[in-house]
Order: sequence, then C-alpha cells, then structure tokens
Amino acid sequence: AVAMDARPTKVQELHVYELNERDRESPAYLRLSAKQSQNALGDLVPFTNKVYNGSLDKRIGITAGICILIQHVPERNGDRYEAIYSIYFGDYGHIAVQGPYLTYEESYLAVTGGSGVFEGAYGQVKLNQIVFPFKIFYTFYLKGIPDLPKELLCAAPVPPSPTVEPTPAAKATEPHACLSNFTD
Amino acid sequence: AVAMDARPTKVQELHVYELNERDRESPAYLRLSAKQSQNALGDLVPFTNKVYNGSLDKRIGITAGICILIQHVPERNGDRYEAIYSIYFGDYGHIAVQGPYLTYEESYLAVTGGSGVFEGAYGQVKLNQIVFPFKIFYTFYLKGIPDLPKELLCAAPVPPSPTVEPTPAAKATEPHACLSNFTD
Amino acid sequence: AVAMDARPTKVQELHVYELNERDRESPAYLRLSAKQSQNALGDLVPFTNKVYNGSLDKRIGITAGICILIQHVPERNGDRYEAIYSIYFGDYGHIAVQGPYLTYEESYLAVTGGSGVFEGAYGQVKLNQIVFPFKIFYTFYLKGIPDLPKELLCAAPVPPSPTVEPTPAAKATEPHACLSNFTD
Repeated sequence: AVAMDARPTKVQELHVYELNERDRESPAYLRLSAKQSQNALGDLVPFTNKVYNGSLDKRIGITAGICILIQHVPERNGDRYEAIYSIYFGDYGHIAVQGPYLTYEESYLAVTGGSGVFEGAYGQVKLNQIVFPFKIFYTFYLKGIPDLPKELLCAAPVPPSPTVEPTPAAKATEPHACLSNFTD
Repeated sequence: AVAMDARPTKVQELHVYELNERDRESPAYLRLSAKQSQNALGDLVPFTNKVYNGSLDKRIGITAGICILIQHVPERNGDRYEAIYSIYFGDYGHIAVQGPYLTYEESYLAVTGGSGVFEGAYGQVKLNQIVFPFKIFYTFYLKGIPDLPKELLCAAPVPPSPTVEPTPAAKATEPHACLSNFTD
Repeated sequence: AVAMDARPTKVQELHVYELNERDRESPAYLRLSAKQSQNALGDLVPFTNKVYNGSLDKRIGITAGICILIQHVPERNGDRYEAIYSIYFGDYGHIAVQGPYLTYEESYLAVTGGSGVFEGAYGQVKLNQIVFPFKIFYTFYLKGIPDLPKELLCAAPVPPSPTVEPTPAAKATEPHACLSNFTD
C-alpha cells in the first residue's frame, strides 16, 4: 500500500524565442547603484519582450519580470544578472523562472512553477543569448505536466543565429500567426 | 520495480482574503520609470497587506513582496504587473507565488513553493480582485502537501463582494479570532 | 494501471555558509522609501555574498538576489525582509529560494527550483543568522533530486558561531579548496 503520484516525470522540450523589437520601452535600466559610471550591484532592470514559437511563425506572448545586476564582469565584457520573470503564453498560461542571466554565455534557469497548461511545471530552461540584449533562444525541459498542446510545439525550431526574425505574419500578429488571446 | 512517490497529488482548495487596511504604509509605489506622468515599466511596488481566512473571522497573517509594473493598459484603464510575493500563515509557514497581477481582471499565479505545512506545495492560485487595490480574494489549488490543518479551512468562504469586511474580533486580532502566532 | 513518478521524495540535508567578506560591494542598500530616517517598505537590497561548504574548507560559489524590506520591527531591533535569491554551486548548478529573512531570528524559506544537479529540487531551507548581516548558516532539506554529489556533502558541519571563518585555503580559493569552476 504505497501512495502514488500521477504527476508526469517525462521531459518535454519546448522552444521559444524572446525578441526585443524596441517597441515596448523595455528594458528600463534603473541605475540605482552608488557607482554611476558602470553597471554595478544596486542596478535593477525591469523588462518585457515579445515571445514567438521556436519556428518563429507564431506570436505567443511576452516575457515580464526583472533582472538584478549582480556583478559587472569586465574580463568577459559583460554582466551577471539574477533574473526572475515569467513567460506568458496567452490563454495557455505562464511559466515562472529564476536563475542566472549572463550576458556573455548561455545559462540554465530553474522553472519554479506555472499556470494553465503549465500548472505544476518544474525543471529547467536553457537560455541561449544570440544578440545581446535583443534576441534570446530558450529550450525548456519541462516536467510535471500533461502533454503540451500541439500548437505550442514545433517540428523544427529555426536554428538560433543573429539574423533570425519572426515571419511578417507573426510580427503583425495576424490571426493565423498568433495564439488566440496571445499575451501582448 | 518502479520508483514511486508518496507526494500527494490531490488538489486542496484554500481560500483567503488579502485586505489593505491602510495601516501598514503599503503599497510603496516607487515611480522609478523615466515616464513620470503615468505608470510605466521601471516602476516598482513593494507591498504588504493583511491576510484573513475565507470566512473573514480569523486573522492569519500578511502578504509580503513586490509588484513589477510591466505595462500600463489604457484601454482597460489599468495595469499589468508581474507579482512575486509570499503569503504568511503564522506558525504554519508560508506559500510563495509568482505570476500576473492585472488590476482589471482576475488572474492565475504559480505556487512556486512553501514552508512549514506548505513545504513542497505546488499548483496555482486564482487572484480575484474585488476593490483595487484594497480587497483581493484568493483561491489556492494546492498539491504536493499533506491534508491542510482544519484551522485554515473554512466550510463556506464569504462570497467576494466590495463590502466584505473581517469580523471586528478578527480585525482586533482577539485570541479566538486569529491563528496563534499569526504573522503581523 | 496507475501512473507513477520516479521523482525521489527522500530528504537530503545540505549545509552551507554564506559569508559577507566585504569585498563584493554588497549589499547595496537602496533607500527608496519615503521614510528616509529608518528602514521602511520601499527599500530594496540587492546582494551577493560568498558561499562555502558546511565544513568551511571549500569555496562553493555565491548568493545572488534581492531582499525587499517589508517591515521595520523596533521591538526586535530588526527588520523583516522578503528574500528572493539563488545559491550558486559552480558547475553543479543553482538552487532558487524565496521566503522570509528576519534579522532577529531564524526562518525557513521555500526552495522553488534549481538547475544542474538541483534540477527539480523542492523543499525548504533553514536560515540561521549568526552575525548580521555577515554570517549565515543554511540547512537545506532537499527533495526531488538524485543523490547529491559527495563533494557537496560534509561529514560534520562546523557548528555555527560568531567566530566561524573559512579555512585560509578556501578563502584563497586554492584549487583543492574550492569546487572546480566555483561561481565567483
């Protein structure tokens, strides 16, 4: 007589792109540290960017959250942030994440939870920065949730490169090229 | 020979009210964005309010955390925030949540963890705003934890309405009307 | 035919020390509240400190995150913060936590997730403050993950006391006294 758990433990991969199209007044770099001449602990960076599916032909939603500047890393010509934010998928819900954002190399963040189809999600996500700070490619390794909706999956994500762009239809959020009720 | 998990996956509903009684100097609206004339990305809103049980006859504790203004939404006459906070239940522990707070409609946040009787909690919580920004009704859908203490459950929550108030005894934190060692 | 979960539910204890050696310009106390004369809601405190193993003979990494001042507690001569941060373990990954940080007594925070060997971690962590704000001893009660690497465990942690110090080799991050690729 053992208790049992119906919670799925298989890994589901989900690819999305986060693109800053410079039309959301994001990021808001709050230079609050005493050291005004360079990025330093004390600076805070609320942000919100657009999110597209991995094949870049469907607008999904937005990111929303904050990066906390932890450390300027001159030898890498970059910065370490602690990032706490969510990725929004319209009516499908959201995924909450927390972890390192390094402007100079890829990192893994923790998936801390979710809502809607992502209710109960856990696992991690790989953040692959392509063009700082405008283009980021994510690979989620999700556990704890039922099979993802097919609409969110894509057979073959566009390989990350500095030149990736969403399709014009997705960028224009034409009905066939966005989730119904995508987050905007 | 399969591995098995004793972690409960049944859903437990828990209702609480968050009330801003204007006696905690909360929220602290930090107008840090460059756009000083209206709410905008860059504004940060630390907050802490009182928490009562769903029948409003027992003081439980407080909320504590931050709302990050993501977007002013003029067509809804409101704002989108990313909210990261905890709900405190005195000696019973706390629940950590993260997700959307929309001043113009209900939303679902992720339960990202907890302590005490909420150790290992996951799931989501519905945030039902009644009177912005003073009265909010929450329905937690908790998984991953043992049966909740009866003291936290209420047979029938007071239906959310703009006129809801805690009982005078709960408001006065009389011993029979609050959790022992409620968070204050 | 029940679904089953291979996710481990046993508790694994992990001890670490967080030490502020005053060489990281941390914390950055941002006095943003309207009340400038004392700590108050509105103040934000980004921070990053060094992390050592429980026996203080190995440098592990850093902490990184933010404390949100919730309440000045004059009768305890201290403050309540909501703390949201991660503990970094070099190539082993990180643990994300959220919960109360009270400058006047110990507290339990939620483990909200992790990466690397901590992927899928949940549970709670006891924060035992030794010398405010310079020396903190943590006991993690981790679930949901495979057996921790032996390198992270220590047979007997140094008992917390105001005089604890890392070994000189660990402080100097000599190769035998730090994790390979410890976070710095």
